[in-house]
Amino acid sequence: MSDLARLSINSETIKQWSLEELVAGCVDAGVPGIAPWREPVEAYGPAKAARLLRDAGLTVTSLCRGGFYTAAEPTERKQALDDNRRAIDEAAELNSPVLVLVSGGLGHQDRDLKGARARVADALAELAPYAGERHVTLAIEPLHPMFCSDRCVVSTLQQALDLARPFPKEQVGVVVDTYHCWWEPDLEAQIDRLGAAGRIALFQVADWITPLPEGVLLGRGQLGDGHVPLREIRQMIDATGHDGPVEVEIFNADMRKRNGAEVLAEVVRRYRDHLV
Amino acid sequence: MSDLARLSINSETIKQWSLEELVAGCVDAGVPGIAPWREPVEAYGPAKAARLLRDAGLTVTSLCRGGFYTAAEPTERKQALDDNRRAIDEAAELNSPVLVLVSGGLGHQDRDLKGARARVADALAELAPYAGERHVTLAIEPLHPMFCSDRCVVSTLQQALDLARPFPKEQVGVVVDTYHCWWEPDLEAQIDRLGAAGRIALFQVADWITPLPEGVLLGRGQLGDGHVPLREIRQMIDATGHDGPVEVEIFNADMRKRNGAEVLAEVVRRYRDHLV
Repeated sequence: MSDLARLSINSETIKQWSLEELVAGCVDAGVPGIAPWREPVEAYGPAKAARLLRDAGLTVTSLCRGGFYTAAEPTERKQALDDNRRAIDEAAELNSPVLVLVSGGLGHQDRDLKGARARVADALAELAPYAGERHVTLAIEPLHPMFCSDRCVVSTLQQALDLARPFPKEQVGVVVDTYHCWWEPDLEAQIDRLGAAGRIALFQVADWITPLPEGVLLGRGQLGDGHVPLREIRQMIDATGHDGPVEVEIFNADMRKRNGAEVLAEVVRRYRDHLV
Repeated sequence: MSDLARLSINSETIKQWSLEELVAGCVDAGVPGIAPWREPVEAYGPAKAARLLRDAGLTVTSLCRGGFYTAAEPTERKQALDDNRRAIDEAAELNSPVLVLVSGGLGHQDRDLKGARARVADALAELAPYAGERHVTLAIEPLHPMFCSDRCVVSTLQQALDLARPFPKEQVGVVVDTYHCWWEPDLEAQIDRLGAAGRIALFQVADWITPLPEGVLLGRGQLGDGHVPLREIRQMIDATGHDGPVEVEIFNADMRKRNGAEVLAEVVRRYRDHLV
């Protein structure tokens, strides 16, 4: 088995590439997995994208992303749930086993964090059976607490597991992303618990570097550049018996300015150095 | 009792003011508490500062800050511990009941978070008896997880409580700062637990606003501008029986550019609107 057998590239890591370029690049580099975001899939056309990926022999490891269903206002809420059903349909069409869910944050000066978190649970209850019928697992992604107000009110692995538990594990699982959870005081115990519950739906990797840029979104580190013990966390994941893909999802402004093929070659090299 | 009876102003909130200006401003505004950082105290001279604060009739609620003792290298570590003993002496001289401790982060590309966290526990064991003899409580401040690598490897209230428990509660407690902990999924339970253990050493307040600025340090919000349910959290603190000061510590670049007296008046107004 190739040492790249578990590697998957998330389209945000090389956002300067179109879907076609990313597919060709992955094939050239011997990368077997790919995780597109919805925007490039929709731009290319979902059915055509499904064909492109299948013909290239690539495995889709996840579709990113659904979620953003914390709004309390009924019309907004209905729109969000409808959009999530479309995202589930797209995941099914692409033969993606997983749809990543980022919950959404709070409205302007909204201080009702508990209310927003309750609405996340309600949204999952509405969407889980729909996803189950289409053989797509909804993967709750806890985002780093610095995104709590503007992107994701789900902040820890424990909280994500608590949200997932009421549903069959084929329908709802959890994303373990090293960028978001590396700081958790009891990370190993949390990963053990997730694994024992059969709830690890996806493993994503990026490194943590500082200083954080304005807005903090595009400041993730290339593998090996920062403070995350990537191999150690991969081993925690493996120890649970989970042997799924390792998806590289790095939001980094500088990496997006460089030549795509160069970035991909660097990711592959870093993956070998820090994760295999 | 004045509705400002519990209010204390941390010197970083109006950093454009010297210690003398801050003291005069607090007296003018009817603010009874003050929490200086070490730099202005050292610039003014600790003994002289103690006299200034006493003569003005102000209560010192904390001295900020000690800590930064995560270095593994023996010389650096000894220097850090010596500096913390000086900080404890300064707190005693100012008649401050509390020395705030920010643990420090990781070295360049250091990935041993567990090791750094273990060194925090060791440092506390070295410093707690020294603080106890001087009637100063060491207050462990968990910082928001976005500071985990560069400022503070202690990230949650639970983690801080676990670090404090081995020591007498007169010697080691915990800072609850709304800016750092507002996102915690089980905040109310954590505050209950801290209170029941008699470990709430200090309550600090600031609001959470976005977008975060580059480096994220100076992006705290004026009270009422953001997403933190300040009064609700104050009520959680009160419900434990803790009735100590409410220290306003806002690191905000724009507030530091304005007229100091104006900023103080605004803080007092916002305190009345969002905390009393």
